[in-house]
Amino acid sequence: MRKGLHGSLHFTSLLRSLLTWPLQPRKILRATTHTDLVVRAKKMGVEVKIVHNASVMNAVGICGLQLYRYGETVSIPFFTDTWRPDSFYEKIRENRNLGLHTLCLLDIRVKEPTLESLCRGRKDYEPPRYMTINTAIEQLLEIAQTREESAYTEDTECVGLARIGSEDQMVVAGTMKQLLLIDFGAPLHCLVITGKTHPLEEEMLDFYRCRT
Amino acid sequence: MRKGLHGSLHFTSLLRSLLTWPLQPRKILRATTHTDLVVRAKKMGVEVKIVHNASVMNAVGICGLQLYRYGETVSIPFFTDTWRPDSFYEKIRENRNLGLHTLCLLDIRVKEPTLESLCRGRKDYEPPRYMTINTAIEQLLEIAQTREESAYTEDTECVGLARIGSEDQMVVAGTMKQLLLIDFGAPLHCLVITGKTHPLEEEMLDFYRCRT
Repeated sequence: MRKGLHGSLHFTSLLRSLLTWPLQPRKILRATTHTDLVVRAKKMGVEVKIVHNASVMNAVGICGLQLYRYGETVSIPFFTDTWRPDSFYEKIRENRNLGLHTLCLLDIRVKEPTLESLCRGRKDYEPPRYMTINTAIEQLLEIAQTREESAYTEDTECVGLARIGSEDQMVVAGTMKQLLLIDFGAPLHCLVITGKTHPLEEEMLDFYRCRT
Repeated sequence: MRKGLHGSLHFTSLLRSLLTWPLQPRKILRATTHTDLVVRAKKMGVEVKIVHNASVMNAVGICGLQLYRYGETVSIPFFTDTWRPDSFYEKIRENRNLGLHTLCLLDIRVKEPTLESLCRGRKDYEPPRYMTINTAIEQLLEIAQTREESAYTEDTECVGLARIGSEDQMVVAGTMKQLLLIDFGAPLHCLVITGKTHPLEEEMLDFYRCRT
């Protein structure tokens, strides 16, 4: 769907997109993608009504880190052999300089056409991929190693959260090094890099602290 | 209820608090108050299950400013003759320096005992008060005037939001000066001070732009 938004958009596909939104693991009106859809609909004279619901952006509150004390949210994309973007690093650095926590949303690659199919004009899709907390930490540490003064290290306290809101959700607090060893299971995963913590935040994190 | 958390807490009142949470206009697990309750419950061996739901912290997304691009959230308390706290100013300044938006949550004074009743040991409460967007802007501007280089002025673009999620919600984008003249009606109100805006954010704000 994301692709479609950057290309031509028919009224019916617009409506279909709107109707399928609640099933998506992404929050309505969180990102430009969503706003773009609303702007187009309004310009077409389509009435838009938003029904608010839970979102990862406040459900992370479950780990006990105060939602007030989060800085800018970052997205971490899958590295490839030739593409290793690191623009999120500066944002994490700025958040941590201010003592703020950082919510890292991890890449979701669904319905991505294969390079081969793009060349041939056929529609073949890559198998869906969801970034794990482990991959995110590996990528984060790789980037930190290339910097002189690092915004975080393998000893930085983080919280890994998997399948928040589900019956089998998993929340573990620990250093990057510790979380690297944990199998968080099925998607979706996200990661919080802590800033300066309040004693009550620490007390809550203790319930989730890694015992290794 | 907030008072109770700082005093003694009985098991029944704890349970009652938990049961009444969904009716409160404050998000579960957003602030230390909530975390404190959970920590105490867990220590008492009470099983705690969180049911996530919508929150002002993502419902503000309706105005079209990207939720990713918010910095630290601030709370603006009512000024009194003798108490004019301004700790939120620095946070707004830091957010704006980074080009981030700031969500300002406005004071809610409900079940506040009168000074008189506190002295007498009787329980008389002040009438409930909810800060309006207008009062918040007045206080913000008062604080900015005392600073040499101001983080914002009366010409800074903001978004006022009232009763988000209700049928009669009201969203108006405009400068502080413009929003000061608008009657947003019944509570709850909140205010967003914009940071650096993306063209698509601007396009969305245009739908809400003040026409005065």
